[in-house]
Amino acid sequence: MRVTTIHAPGDIRLEERPDPTIERPTDAIVRTVAACVCGSDLWPYRGANDVEAGNPIGHELVGVVEAVGSDVTSFRPGQFVVVPFCHSDNTCAHCAVGMTSACVNGGFTNGGQAELVRVTQAEGSMVATDGMPDDDLIPSLLTLSDVMATGWHAAVAAGVEEGDTVVVVGDGAVGLCGVLAASVMGAGQVIAMSRHEPRQRIAEQFGATNLIAARGEEGEQEVLDLTDGVGADAVLECVGTGQAMATAFNVARPGSTVGFVGVPHGVELPIRRMFSKNIGLAGGMAPVRTYLPELMQLVTDGTINPGIVFDAVMPLEDVAEAYRAMDEREAIKVLLEP
Amino acid sequence: MRVTTIHAPGDIRLEERPDPTIERPTDAIVRTVAACVCGSDLWPYRGANDVEAGNPIGHELVGVVEAVGSDVTSFRPGQFVVVPFCHSDNTCAHCAVGMTSACVNGGFTNGGQAELVRVTQAEGSMVATDGMPDDDLIPSLLTLSDVMATGWHAAVAAGVEEGDTVVVVGDGAVGLCGVLAASVMGAGQVIAMSRHEPRQRIAEQFGATNLIAARGEEGEQEVLDLTDGVGADAVLECVGTGQAMATAFNVARPGSTVGFVGVPHGVELPIRRMFSKNIGLAGGMAPVRTYLPELMQLVTDGTINPGIVFDAVMPLEDVAEAYRAMDEREAIKVLLEP
Repeated sequence: MRVTTIHAPGDIRLEERPDPTIERPTDAIVRTVAACVCGSDLWPYRGANDVEAGNPIGHELVGVVEAVGSDVTSFRPGQFVVVPFCHSDNTCAHCAVGMTSACVNGGFTNGGQAELVRVTQAEGSMVATDGMPDDDLIPSLLTLSDVMATGWHAAVAAGVEEGDTVVVVGDGAVGLCGVLAASVMGAGQVIAMSRHEPRQRIAEQFGATNLIAARGEEGEQEVLDLTDGVGADAVLECVGTGQAMATAFNVARPGSTVGFVGVPHGVELPIRRMFSKNIGLAGGMAPVRTYLPELMQLVTDGTINPGIVFDAVMPLEDVAEAYRAMDEREAIKVLLEP
Repeated sequence: MRVTTIHAPGDIRLEERPDPTIERPTDAIVRTVAACVCGSDLWPYRGANDVEAGNPIGHELVGVVEAVGSDVTSFRPGQFVVVPFCHSDNTCAHCAVGMTSACVNGGFTNGGQAELVRVTQAEGSMVATDGMPDDDLIPSLLTLSDVMATGWHAAVAAGVEEGDTVVVVGDGAVGLCGVLAASVMGAGQVIAMSRHEPRQRIAEQFGATNLIAARGEEGEQEVLDLTDGVGADAVLECVGTGQAMATAFNVARPGSTVGFVGVPHGVELPIRRMFSKNIGLAGGMAPVRTYLPELMQLVTDGTINPGIVFDAVMPLEDVAEAYRAMDEREAIKVLLEP
């Protein structure tokens, strides 16, 4: 089968590898229907993370169950499933309180931009749809494997409540999904910090009430101006850089929480400000499985349509081009079809 | 009148200064009935903070109203009041959501170890008792000006809920009050990390179910052993050092929150662990005024008796000795009587 691998920063290849097999009774093999490139895949692509040459890459997919191990009793070949990027048994002490991304038996999808993918802890990780979904639902279901669930987690972690003024830092697919999450949760004002016109349009479709194109101090001042100098009731940090985190804390009102989901790179937390202004930090790796039933319902009943973050569709053989387009910000997010 | 001043690290003096006066219509002058030394007063005493020679020091007191400015309409001379260390108008946008320690018109008690003290924003800051309290309630009421309210804030920030397993890092007066707060909030297990026998006894009186004397990795392992390897549902960090913060995060279960109230000194936050384990940080400078009505009720109805953190009482002229005794850990907390 064909799987995407990374050999060095900027060097993405589609290679022939042996089909994955059931290695443990808790495994499943899923035949990919749609996969995609994540913003976090760009960290190694850009050389910000170490790369082990030839490693498979990719962790977002939906597909059809091909085979299951003997402990996987709730799934059968032929079912359509959403595969969370982090796997969980959904029974351990951490899973029991909803923290499925910290499962003691957890793992990750590795090599998800491929024709076939091995899912560990399949029983506790995957969620099946009722029958085969319509083609037009596939992109939205695909976002639930990571970005939409992650944007949702940012809003949950930030404690978004009905009527809140919410700022979303970052206009990648996760940030846009954060805008959508805050809107669905009833935020009264959703301020999207975005300077890219196509992303601004999606932010508006997702419910952004205000757009701020400026960055740094200028952008922060605009948030303060919009909030009578008070700051936001909740802030979603969806990038992971030092600048994004600094902005998040500078626009958060005293007593509020910054919900962060961007993998931190070079972030220094402003602990003095956190202390003097009582601004909390919460979030991290999204417990995707925990949110999946609710989010799948919202997608299938038409309440949310996060799939519009995909502004390009490419065949799997063009995966290197997909990375390049996202790296150069020509595309927001690329859907890959094997 | 006599007021405590600091001239250099280790150099505490009681000096004669002019009586404070009403400088603004929002001021009040309070005649001190009892004051005390705070753990945070030890930072400049130990040279960890800059010292401006001759500055008044101290911020915890209860007393009797001596005079009020023209805007202070709810208080009259002769009333007994608790004075929060941080002052607030209790009407601004931050106060309106309970974040009184971030009041836009806020200030701090400065020179609280004195016979007379000026309180800014007296109307929104002070809370009076019904009549003159019995002498035996004075120590507990005094703790409400800072340490008990601060320990309470740590528990609120950490999200302590009924039945939780709570770890309290730090056995100073604030940490001990954190133990009491967690107990009152219904924690099922309260693990106090304390190696000093007199403090351990108070922790037990405050409801600690377990004591851990070991520090660092060894102490952390004991918490994990006590919690089946899961970690605590809520952690109260009541010190402010790097080691205390590290321990707090190492014993916090995934998805939990570290409530921090120790003024941070040399703290580096473990953002990678916070991200991968979804451990949040919340807290900061306690919004004392917000909690005062509830805590005064708990004191006057006998539910809590935080005043037992005072293991020494000295006349105000011995204030230098009070600092020395606390610095050398001979005393947990010294009550000063003018």
